[in-house]
Amino acid sequence: MPLTHIALRAGKPETFRQAICDSLHRAMHETFNVPEDNDFVLITEHEAANFRYDPSYLGIVRSDDLVFIQITANNTRSVEQKKALFSRIVELLGENPGLRSEDVFVSLVEVEKENWSLGNGVAQYAENIAASAVLHI
Amino acid sequence: MPLTHIALRAGKPETFRQAICDSLHRAMHETFNVPEDNDFVLITEHEAANFRYDPSYLGIVRSDDLVFIQITANNTRSVEQKKALFSRIVELLGENPGLRSEDVFVSLVEVEKENWSLGNGVAQYAENIAASAVLHI
Amino acid sequence: MPLTHIALRAGKPETFRQAICDSLHRAMHETFNVPEDNDFVLITEHEAANFRYDPSYLGIVRSDDLVFIQITANNTRSVEQKKALFSRIVELLGENPGLRSEDVFVSLVEVEKENWSLGNGVAQYAENIAASAVLHI
Repeated sequence: MPLTHIALRAGKPETFRQAICDSLHRAMHETFNVPEDNDFVLITEHEAANFRYDPSYLGIVRSDDLVFIQITANNTRSVEQKKALFSRIVELLGENPGLRSEDVFVSLVEVEKENWSLGNGVAQYAENIAASAVLHI
Repeated sequence: MPLTHIALRAGKPETFRQAICDSLHRAMHETFNVPEDNDFVLITEHEAANFRYDPSYLGIVRSDDLVFIQITANNTRSVEQKKALFSRIVELLGENPGLRSEDVFVSLVEVEKENWSLGNGVAQYAENIAASAVLHI
Repeated sequence: MPLTHIALRAGKPETFRQAICDSLHRAMHETFNVPEDNDFVLITEHEAANFRYDPSYLGIVRSDDLVFIQITANNTRSVEQKKALFSRIVELLGENPGLRSEDVFVSLVEVEKENWSLGNGVAQYAENIAASAVLHI
C-alpha cells in the first residue's frame, strides 16, 4: 500500500502522466511516511462522456485538465497529515507537470493494516503488527 | 464527494451513459442530500471477458445490460437513507435510460469527512466540521 | 458482494484473464465463505505507462505479469481469514494461470453489510441482518 488510481481525460502525453505519478509519490513520501520504493499506481484515461465533473462546485473552477486521484491506504494517518498530503500534492503537481490547483481532486479510502498482500500471499503489514508487538514486550 | 465509478459493457451510446449519470445523480440528490452541482463520475467500458457477473445470484436475473455503480461517499448516512438511495436509483434508471431493476448493482464505500480534497489542496469537508463546531459552541 | 477489480498489463489472452477470475473466486469461496454463484469482477487492462509498480518493494521481485486485485467486501472476516485468503489466492493463481507468487498484489476494502444492492433496488444484506435478528429472537 498505498494503491492509487488516477483518472484523467485521454490524450495527455506519457511524460505528463508520469510527472503526476512522480509528484504524487513524493507528496505521499513527505507527508504520509510512504517509503520511496512503495510506488503502485493505476491510471485510466477517459473520453469526455466517461469523465464527468462539475466545473464550479464549491466555487472551484475546474477544467478538462482535472485529475481524479483515489488513494487506498492504511487508516493510520491523522487529520493533520491528510491536510498536509492534500496541500503538498497540489504544490508538487503545480510544479510538475504544472497542474492548476483547482484541477486536483483527491479521494482517500482507508483500510485496516491487515488488508494488504504485496506479494507472496502474505499480509505484510499484519505481520509487522505482530512483529512490533513482540518488540514492544 | 461523492465520487462514483460506473462500469458497463462497451458499446452503449453516449446518450445512454449520460442518462445513467443524470438519473443516478438525481437519486443521490433526493436521498443522500448531495448538492445539485456535486457531480463527479468516472465511467469504464468493458468487453465481455473483462466484465464478469453471475446471471442469477440471489435469484436476480441479470443481463449484459448490467451496470455496476460504485459510490465513494462520506459515512454520514443512515441505513434507511441507503435503502432509499438504492430504491430511488432503480426507479430513476428504470425511467431513463430504461434499465431493468435486475441490472442495477450498487456498491457503497464510506469514508471519513476529512478524506476529500475537491480542489486547491484543501480538505473542504474537514473545514466544514471545524466551522460547524464553532457555530455550535 | 464482493465486487472485485483486477488490473493487469494489456495483451494477456482472454483464457489467462478468465483463469485469474476462476482461481480468485475459488479462493474467496474457500476462505471467505463467498457463495459459488456470487461472482462479480471488473478487469481493466493497462499499457506500461498506466501501470506503475515498484519491482522490489519489501524485497519482493515483481514483473510485468503483476496483477492487482482489489476486493470490496463486507467487514465480517477475521485477520486469520484474510491471511488465509491471501495465501490461497497465491496458491490457486500459481496453479492456474501459473502466476508467480511475487506477482500477486491484493488490496481488500471493507464496507458495512447494508452498503450493497445486487439488483432490484434492495439492500439484500441489510435485509438478511433483519431476518437473522428475527430468527435469533
